Amino acid sequence: MTRMRPLIFLDPHPRTEEMVFTPDVEAALGRMGRVVHHFGGRAPDDLVESVLDEVAIIIGQTAMDRDRLDRATNLKAIINVKANWEPNVDYAHAQALGVQVLTVAPVMGRPVAEYCLAQAINLARGFVAADAAFRAGTERYGGAGNRAAYSLFDAPVGLIGYGNLGRALTPLLRPFTSRIAVHDPFLSDAYLRTQGLEPVSLDALLASSRFVYILAGATSENEGFLSAAKLAAIGDGASVVLGSRAEVVDFDALLAEADSGRLRVAVDVFPEEPVPADSAWRATANALFTAHLAGGMASTYAAMREMVLDDVAQILKDLPPMRLQRAEPRQAAMARSR
Amino acid sequence: MTRMRPLIFLDPHPRTEEMVFTPDVEAALGRMGRVVHHFGGRAPDDLVESVLDEVAIIIGQTAMDRDRLDRATNLKAIINVKANWEPNVDYAHAQALGVQVLTVAPVMGRPVAEYCLAQAINLARGFVAADAAFRAGTERYGGAGNRAAYSLFDAPVGLIGYGNLGRALTPLLRPFTSRIAVHDPFLSDAYLRTQGLEPVSLDALLASSRFVYILAGATSENEGFLSAAKLAAIGDGASVVLGSRAEVVDFDALLAEADSGRLRVAVDVFPEEPVPADSAWRATANALFTAHLAGGMASTYAAMREMVLDDVAQILKDLPPMRLQRAEPRQAAMARSR
Amino acid sequence: MTRMRPLIFLDPHPRTEEMVFTPDVEAALGRMGRVVHHFGGRAPDDLVESVLDEVAIIIGQTAMDRDRLDRATNLKAIINVKANWEPNVDYAHAQALGVQVLTVAPVMGRPVAEYCLAQAINLARGFVAADAAFRAGTERYGGAGNRAAYSLFDAPVGLIGYGNLGRALTPLLRPFTSRIAVHDPFLSDAYLRTQGLEPVSLDALLASSRFVYILAGATSENEGFLSAAKLAAIGDGASVVLGSRAEVVDFDALLAEADSGRLRVAVDVFPEEPVPADSAWRATANALFTAHLAGGMASTYAAMREMVLDDVAQILKDLPPMRLQRAEPRQAAMARSR
Amino acid sequence: MTRMRPLIFLDPHPRTEEMVFTPDVEAALGRMGRVVHHFGGRAPDDLVESVLDEVAIIIGQTAMDRDRLDRATNLKAIINVKANWEPNVDYAHAQALGVQVLTVAPVMGRPVAEYCLAQAINLARGFVAADAAFRAGTERYGGAGNRAAYSLFDAPVGLIGYGNLGRALTPLLRPFTSRIAVHDPFLSDAYLRTQGLEPVSLDALLASSRFVYILAGATSENEGFLSAAKLAAIGDGASVVLGSRAEVVDFDALLAEADSGRLRVAVDVFPEEPVPADSAWRATANALFTAHLAGGMASTYAAMREMVLDDVAQILKDLPPMRLQRAEPRQAAMARSR
Repeated sequence: MTRMRPLIFLDPHPRTEEMVFTPDVEAALGRMGRVVHHFGGRAPDDLVESVLDEVAIIIGQTAMDRDRLDRATNLKAIINVKANWEPNVDYAHAQALGVQVLTVAPVMGRPVAEYCLAQAINLARGFVAADAAFRAGTERYGGAGNRAAYSLFDAPVGLIGYGNLGRALTPLLRPFTSRIAVHDPFLSDAYLRTQGLEPVSLDALLASSRFVYILAGATSENEGFLSAAKLAAIGDGASVVLGSRAEVVDFDALLAEADSGRLRVAVDVFPEEPVPADSAWRATANALFTAHLAGGMASTYAAMREMVLDDVAQILKDLPPMRLQRAEPRQAAMARSR
Repeated sequence: MTRMRPLIFLDPHPRTEEMVFTPDVEAALGRMGRVVHHFGGRAPDDLVESVLDEVAIIIGQTAMDRDRLDRATNLKAIINVKANWEPNVDYAHAQALGVQVLTVAPVMGRPVAEYCLAQAINLARGFVAADAAFRAGTERYGGAGNRAAYSLFDAPVGLIGYGNLGRALTPLLRPFTSRIAVHDPFLSDAYLRTQGLEPVSLDALLASSRFVYILAGATSENEGFLSAAKLAAIGDGASVVLGSRAEVVDFDALLAEADSGRLRVAVDVFPEEPVPADSAWRATANALFTAHLAGGMASTYAAMREMVLDDVAQILKDLPPMRLQRAEPRQAAMARSR
Repeated sequence: MTRMRPLIFLDPHPRTEEMVFTPDVEAALGRMGRVVHHFGGRAPDDLVESVLDEVAIIIGQTAMDRDRLDRATNLKAIINVKANWEPNVDYAHAQALGVQVLTVAPVMGRPVAEYCLAQAINLARGFVAADAAFRAGTERYGGAGNRAAYSLFDAPVGLIGYGNLGRALTPLLRPFTSRIAVHDPFLSDAYLRTQGLEPVSLDALLASSRFVYILAGATSENEGFLSAAKLAAIGDGASVVLGSRAEVVDFDALLAEADSGRLRVAVDVFPEEPVPADSAWRATANALFTAHLAGGMASTYAAMREMVLDDVAQILKDLPPMRLQRAEPRQAAMARSR
Repeated sequence: MTRMRPLIFLDPHPRTEEMVFTPDVEAALGRMGRVVHHFGGRAPDDLVESVLDEVAIIIGQTAMDRDRLDRATNLKAIINVKANWEPNVDYAHAQALGVQVLTVAPVMGRPVAEYCLAQAINLARGFVAADAAFRAGTERYGGAGNRAAYSLFDAPVGLIGYGNLGRALTPLLRPFTSRIAVHDPFLSDAYLRTQGLEPVSLDALLASSRFVYILAGATSENEGFLSAAKLAAIGDGASVVLGSRAEVVDFDALLAEADSGRLRVAVDVFPEEPVPADSAWRATANALFTAHLAGGMASTYAAMREMVLDDVAQILKDLPPMRLQRAEPRQAAMARSR
């Protein structure tokens, strides 16, 4: 009797074939096992049920409650490719069964860090306004044009949240400054010190940072913790980059601080997307907007595909995955997705 | 008989008092010697002549021909604060007399490198256009908005010229990519390899770099060496940042490559400044303009003042200057300033 | 009714009070919970049984089979402080129950890496023999004394195994050389490349490395995999440092290669310890011996205590441990301890 | 009429042909010019005189007083390959004539830094004594053998002198510790801070450093400045590495501090070499000796040859030398050689 080839099930919506199932991925997965896939929406229940007793690897966000997990007796790993945890998996039970729950979230670290670095410099140096001024013929040259400019070099920087984004951003900041403070209530001070970072309270961070990075993931407990009062504690003229989730901040207060000229603000994520056509946000002064562009480029998805292929191979050889991130069951259950 | 206090002469035009002679500098220099200064234009001849036999340090761009150098028998150092060599000093004769000729040029390295890094990312990621699109209500979200975006991570980068700007930029690029090639005819290949850089020909650099940095200083011999034909050899879609001098490139050809959509181009320096109000340059598509803003911020001048004070103290103690850069007589004589 | 304070159970033998339970640790743990401890040997069964239904954290190597795990209904974590997995824990069942199994193993990384770096240089440069020669009056000066000396700078280095030791050693090697190859069958090539390392086969590593580091942990499957034949494939004159476990190598063959003068070898661990007084190993030429000194210094235990305290606090707050390492159930089960 | 090929004169004694004039060097120099050489002693006067009017490059320590310099009208550069300045060159006059005076001294930085790093760890960890104990059968295992051991990780390190040696050592120390203090009276505090180093007074350095590096070159003014009283100010148990010149320290006092067990000391250079056979120095306890082996290995001379060839090529093309170090005329004149 021949040993069955492992079944790999792809159910990656909202990820598309172009993002996660290019011909090279199809070929590589095909060499490792038998592949079943569904695109264009979440896989229908009957398809899921049809693979359940055989599936070894799920790549996607298939609902996997306790009952399904119990019936998936060959399942080794669930690989979330959305980079946010959904509440449709029983994370604790998966762990109890020895099913690895993994996410591609680290792949977003580098592109978002690149965004964070460039926008901070853009805010401080005024490069976007300078381009507009030159095109309008109102440019001022040299020092006269740099009256409000400041530099990231040697500046105090504060990171609110030190997860994948903070970890990816820190090496980009190091050549500019040694003054990197972090506030993250999930991490111990001693750990942060081992990383060469200064652990600080949120209030101390807001008061002392010339550049404030909002990198905290949204959880069921931290909605709006960066309130108008907290934002008011940031020093005049500071540059603020919102790189994670709009839910964690009083969004209107943040834009009001920019519009008044007290802060400079870069925003990539919004409380609702798409933003209504007539939204007043669009006219905010001293702000730089991008429409959820920080993370998902073609190169991001290429890196995601490589990570997934790499760790599927590890898992099918009973070796530890090296590139994907494991779910912390408690954190995964607490994470908010939308 | 008392020993005379050394005379320090400031003639820094076009640098202003605000840039180089703030009250703290005045006080610090006053502790080190007797200070004579002139602002608002180049010092008149009679003022120069009146200090010539006593002057120990010149901070500025005073014309110092062979005759004056011979008469300045107490002169230890000339400190150029313009960051470009002028032809009004007999560099070889100063060296022959043991007069140190120094420049603050390295101080421009960090702010220009910051500009170079941010604009490269802006070009590749399209952040400036994205802000405009959001304000106009024409934004596209996520992957749809990132169709033309690419990343600096892991990209091949080419530096044309590896002087102060290249040296300051390289540490900022390292966390992004290990693929940094350099073309600099003044430097040996073996030296570049000791710096962890790949020495390449100009043609190889142009053909293989996704990001091209033009960082070469203008000399009497390299005007326009980046001709239209050379620019045409750059790969489609590459991002080009002009960070040094407009003279080294066929400027109109460079902007034409941007306007056609074949290249993306950032420009901080122009063949003439200010640019005429009706210049066609201003409407160039796929370009990011700044009006000679890359280097001279308030923090740049603060760093310049610190460097000058620091090395004046060293020189007056007969110790080697550590922060200012020495003139290479041949290179200084060849450099073009304007 | 008051909520019970968590019970923390210490059963760390062979670790002593001096190593893991200094007064500051006692005080800190006492602030976090109720502490029960046993030193001088493994805790007797009746003591273990008496805490089992209440214990929240076990610090030590207590035997925890499936039955005990099932009965320890308040148990959150088991913290191994021996740095090697023992077979007396049902690792898979602990995982199934959501009990975290953690180890202080990473704390050994830095001291062992320090050992590895220094001994490699000692072997290549001959510093130990040079001291003996000077004391004997047979020294030769300068170049004459350096005939056989070579440098770690720019040398090809090979790491056999890339776990905690390899990860700690790599940053120490980077300033010396960019040529670091790794063979580790548990890791994917793509992962190693993301770490700036070159994945190679064992044979390629042995043939091409001027410095060979044996850093592989002993498992039930890799005993003696560095056979006499494999050792014979190492290039003449190479320096070999055995930093992990003697079991992975044909130990007599390794020392024979040193004694013959073909290789230079540093050894910190032995197939049996203490080594018999009359062992022929002691007279091996071209070898540097230390008696299992690479890891356990006073500062190592201080760091261990800090790590444990830090993560006990995290765990009791239901936050993820940040400094201890998690068991891979399969790897832990396969690991050999003695 | 043909243009003369430049004459390159080698007079490198005490460097030998094996060190500086291997066949590849001979061939490479032969492609660049006409080569005249003398080995086995300083070139005789008549040979020097015979090349004087034509010589373009001197590689060696030929006596070049003012008169000879004036007559060497084609001379572009003098390249000292001994790495110490001799008083037989009129450094100021060479500078006045525009003759570059260069040294290979930086090539010693890396091998000496490698020595400095390894011996510091050897002193702190006791690896040399541990090898002897194992061979004698008196070894103690693990913690028992490590009672006096300490680590370089996170330790305060002090560098006395920050020239080529300090600059080469610093990158090797960085992965171990961020606490690097420097005392160097030739350098400004602000400069040291730009290098990420803490400028301190000599007394503060001695009192606070767990590792003390003596890296100061000997000058006409600093003989014995590390007196017995200064050495007594070093903290108990500290490790001291003498890496530059014995003249700067009270050598007997230094060894007495080791012999008494108060300090641990590594010495590579001696007040006289060879050391007399019956010297009491040889029996010093708590000391590690090498016979002037820190710098000059085969690989050092290979690097030296590459540097010289590289910069001879630059100079003959009228480009700035990039790898050799320039003489500071005042410092060169003050340096002591022997």
